[in-house]
Amino acid sequence: MKKHILTDVENRIWEEDFYISSENWNVNKKTLRGGLQDGVDIIEVNNGAFSFSVLPTRGMGIWKGKFCGCDVGWNSPSKGPVNPKFVSLTERNGIGWLKGFDEMLVRCGLSYHGQPSYDGEDFLPLHGKIANIPAKFVSVEVDDEKISVEGIVDEAEMFGPQIRLYTRIESEFCSNKITVIDEIENIGGTETEMEILYHCNFGEPFLEKGSKLVLPIQEMSPRNEEAAKGLNSFDTYDAPTPGYEEQCFFYKLLSRSTGKTLAVLKNSSGNKAVILRFNKKEIPCFTQWKNTVAENDGYVTGIEPGTSYPNPRAFEREKGRLKKLAPGEKHSMTLSIEIVDSKKEVEKVVNEIAEIQKKKKRKIYETPNAKFTAVGN
Amino acid sequence: MKKHILTDVENRIWEEDFYISSENWNVNKKTLRGGLQDGVDIIEVNNGAFSFSVLPTRGMGIWKGKFCGCDVGWNSPSKGPVNPKFVSLTERNGIGWLKGFDEMLVRCGLSYHGQPSYDGEDFLPLHGKIANIPAKFVSVEVDDEKISVEGIVDEAEMFGPQIRLYTRIESEFCSNKITVIDEIENIGGTETEMEILYHCNFGEPFLEKGSKLVLPIQEMSPRNEEAAKGLNSFDTYDAPTPGYEEQCFFYKLLSRSTGKTLAVLKNSSGNKAVILRFNKKEIPCFTQWKNTVAENDGYVTGIEPGTSYPNPRAFEREKGRLKKLAPGEKHSMTLSIEIVDSKKEVEKVVNEIAEIQKKKKRKIYETPNAKFTAVGN
Amino acid sequence: MKKHILTDVENRIWEEDFYISSENWNVNKKTLRGGLQDGVDIIEVNNGAFSFSVLPTRGMGIWKGKFCGCDVGWNSPSKGPVNPKFVSLTERNGIGWLKGFDEMLVRCGLSYHGQPSYDGEDFLPLHGKIANIPAKFVSVEVDDEKISVEGIVDEAEMFGPQIRLYTRIESEFCSNKITVIDEIENIGGTETEMEILYHCNFGEPFLEKGSKLVLPIQEMSPRNEEAAKGLNSFDTYDAPTPGYEEQCFFYKLLSRSTGKTLAVLKNSSGNKAVILRFNKKEIPCFTQWKNTVAENDGYVTGIEPGTSYPNPRAFEREKGRLKKLAPGEKHSMTLSIEIVDSKKEVEKVVNEIAEIQKKKKRKIYETPNAKFTAVGN
Repeated sequence: MKKHILTDVENRIWEEDFYISSENWNVNKKTLRGGLQDGVDIIEVNNGAFSFSVLPTRGMGIWKGKFCGCDVGWNSPSKGPVNPKFVSLTERNGIGWLKGFDEMLVRCGLSYHGQPSYDGEDFLPLHGKIANIPAKFVSVEVDDEKISVEGIVDEAEMFGPQIRLYTRIESEFCSNKITVIDEIENIGGTETEMEILYHCNFGEPFLEKGSKLVLPIQEMSPRNEEAAKGLNSFDTYDAPTPGYEEQCFFYKLLSRSTGKTLAVLKNSSGNKAVILRFNKKEIPCFTQWKNTVAENDGYVTGIEPGTSYPNPRAFEREKGRLKKLAPGEKHSMTLSIEIVDSKKEVEKVVNEIAEIQKKKKRKIYETPNAKFTAVGN
Repeated sequence: MKKHILTDVENRIWEEDFYISSENWNVNKKTLRGGLQDGVDIIEVNNGAFSFSVLPTRGMGIWKGKFCGCDVGWNSPSKGPVNPKFVSLTERNGIGWLKGFDEMLVRCGLSYHGQPSYDGEDFLPLHGKIANIPAKFVSVEVDDEKISVEGIVDEAEMFGPQIRLYTRIESEFCSNKITVIDEIENIGGTETEMEILYHCNFGEPFLEKGSKLVLPIQEMSPRNEEAAKGLNSFDTYDAPTPGYEEQCFFYKLLSRSTGKTLAVLKNSSGNKAVILRFNKKEIPCFTQWKNTVAENDGYVTGIEPGTSYPNPRAFEREKGRLKKLAPGEKHSMTLSIEIVDSKKEVEKVVNEIAEIQKKKKRKIYETPNAKFTAVGN
Repeated sequence: MKKHILTDVENRIWEEDFYISSENWNVNKKTLRGGLQDGVDIIEVNNGAFSFSVLPTRGMGIWKGKFCGCDVGWNSPSKGPVNPKFVSLTERNGIGWLKGFDEMLVRCGLSYHGQPSYDGEDFLPLHGKIANIPAKFVSVEVDDEKISVEGIVDEAEMFGPQIRLYTRIESEFCSNKITVIDEIENIGGTETEMEILYHCNFGEPFLEKGSKLVLPIQEMSPRNEEAAKGLNSFDTYDAPTPGYEEQCFFYKLLSRSTGKTLAVLKNSSGNKAVILRFNKKEIPCFTQWKNTVAENDGYVTGIEPGTSYPNPRAFEREKGRLKKLAPGEKHSMTLSIEIVDSKKEVEKVVNEIAEIQKKKKRKIYETPNAKFTAVGN
């Protein structure tokens, strides 16, 4: 139950290497060297069945995982983990963030996310800062049931918002699940806006020709005309297709009365799936990103719960989707990533979604709907 | 009297750790790891009474100090010391410099400083480069009376100005004073312009409700309309005020016939003060920055001797305030920071200023004066 | 014949220090610390007669050399080798690349090079990315005849071109020659454009008043009006001249029927020369950069074989000079740098060029020619 502190900049603690293990599980912390990875701290957690890496240097994102021989994550052309010291967000007309984009779970935010845009006179490059801020505090704790990695990442600058991410990433021994428990706090002296997008990204084997995204849908709008073209098969994925142009769909999901809901990405034969579980009261929006390009170009789908949609911040403000936090106020969110690898388990979660869907008939907008999207209106 | 060389890139010398001490004093050099501090070299000097940190990685700025239990410095939302590898000056529409701004003394310059502006077609982001250039040479020397830290920082790039800062930061054993002796040299082959602003920043306990900035004033102009609103109480500070909008005042100070002058920031009850001493012949301009925002947002005042005002470089050029340096030419400046903590000592320096003020009646411009400021005219 | 792997990020190999030697030669790998050099990996090769440094951290460029007491390279105001972590390409209106520019051989490219420009809406800062990307793989091999340094540098980002540089830098024991064997591969899933410029830079003693650039010329155009002014003495160099404005000349060279050609920079008395050898079929273009400014300002000439000219990419595309690579397609190039230091050897290579020149009379355009240059038309 001891908490092993790996980084604590205020107390000048930093461990270059760290390793603990038992018969079934282990945790291994390394600092990578060379290439664009130079200086990246990586914490590799193996719970006995599910192994995954946490990246303190990249805002406590979850890099890649492996469950029972299956890769959980994707192959990005940006080969990481990339040290933020090599990333300049303003490059490439404001899409410099992509240089480091290869995580399975990367947080976009916290003061804004979405496409590069102007908010008044302020230029906001793609997807915000949090993924490129190294954690100021990192610890590992193992108790009788699970491994926990904690981190604190401050997105805070003079004359800007001051938003703290406190995250606890838990995984029970030999389980098929990672649970991410995030608390976002306004550590500044004045009210701040906040938005976050959990950009969860999967390639093969969960994504393949015939894979499906199963969701309990209340409303859905294609992001733009390009996505509208793909409306007939929005929930089904193509094989890798060189030159495919990305499509995004914005969802309002249904949930149980508690707010609990889920999203399932299942493979073609329906014997493998990734399940995201979260609470609509904490995380009300959901975005699907289809990017079934050539394998080498980043064959991937993003399934992305968020407090808002990845539109320009000014648009999300207008729609009332930015979270306002008073000084000291916190917003908590829990998101779990679960892997199942049998037909039976996949059917079970698909039924779970069908059950929720019964509450209401889904509403699909055939053209980009102005409530959801800033594009093409 | 030995000079301990901690960094000398030409000769491939670099010490990760260094420590020397005697009964009363000590000097401790560390390289910080983790967070935004990762890789920052810090030299902690304790003269027996006054302790302070020098940051070779951040252009030989002085981070924070402590004198007889008093914090000397301020609490910025930007928690540093931040490694320049994580700072991109062009971010946030050109105010990316703020990401690393939390020093007690940070030099702005050397080829320009001030608000982001265009000089012809050249975009100049906030406050210049020098604070984000690691020193190429660093040494520590201790003699019978004092501790000295020397550094060389080159602001020099192909097809740009080549300006060297040579600094010597001295502090006598058990003294209440740090002396910064700077020499700026044009190491290029053609004439260059130069300007520098010594951005000295203090929060509590020197800054509090009722604190006063005492100066021997020849002329003063508010920077803009916002500052003009605060003219009636320009020399007095408020308690932390959430949402306070910063005010700047530009001064031409009076001095003794030798050019020697001083600025005093004293607390409310007048038993604590920071004293800056410098020579008007070397450093002719003075800027006061009032930023009495909420504590968490960076409650601070900047008292800033400089060779010019933090206006756009094009404006300062027009006013003849840029220093021109021929190849090999040097400009030397000495600035001391002194802490006093008794009513008697505070009164003494306040009287010293009153004595200088007798030379001439001060002239306060009630609206932004075009001689001083580029804003609001 | 063993291959010593110094960096292999995929397999988490990275050697901080490495040294091998025999009686006559040695190879020494260090990681530099402090200043702008902090964290730069440098491989110093001494073949017994010619010593030079390879910079894995800067895209496998060749930093500086020394042959029989002669410096091979130049003195840039940008004192390197500069770690890319301190370089922001978009700074200084898009010429941020210059902050790290002090190599003897620096590759510009790979998806574009040349002056900052817009290609459609995309802003492309100076000279591309490859020089500021750390190698992901680095090895050293020594066989019975030579020392070889290999490296792999990936210029690859999500939603961008994915271009791999595989380079092998060879030097025979006690030889006067470095051979750079580059293979550029499209590792993406869709066709990509590619261009590369081998920016080879020399100052004293090869460059001095009266030095000459000897080339087998088919056609030549000055880059702009400024260069056109220098047309009468395009092949001859001035002494260091404070305030000299750079001149560029674009060449189509003649070659032997095999495509083999060469460029010779010889000193004033004709007893020292740098010889570049390459194949026009692989590297069809050639640029001369005259920058005979004051010594401290970077007295240098660039002699620059390339697949295209350093014009805006949109212009080079229009002229059909961008190389198109299908997925998996490779383009190979070999470039050697040879130093000679006797009148006899210099005369021999000058004759070699004269022999090639006999094939055709050279065509010199007196004004910037629209086939060659985007400037001033």
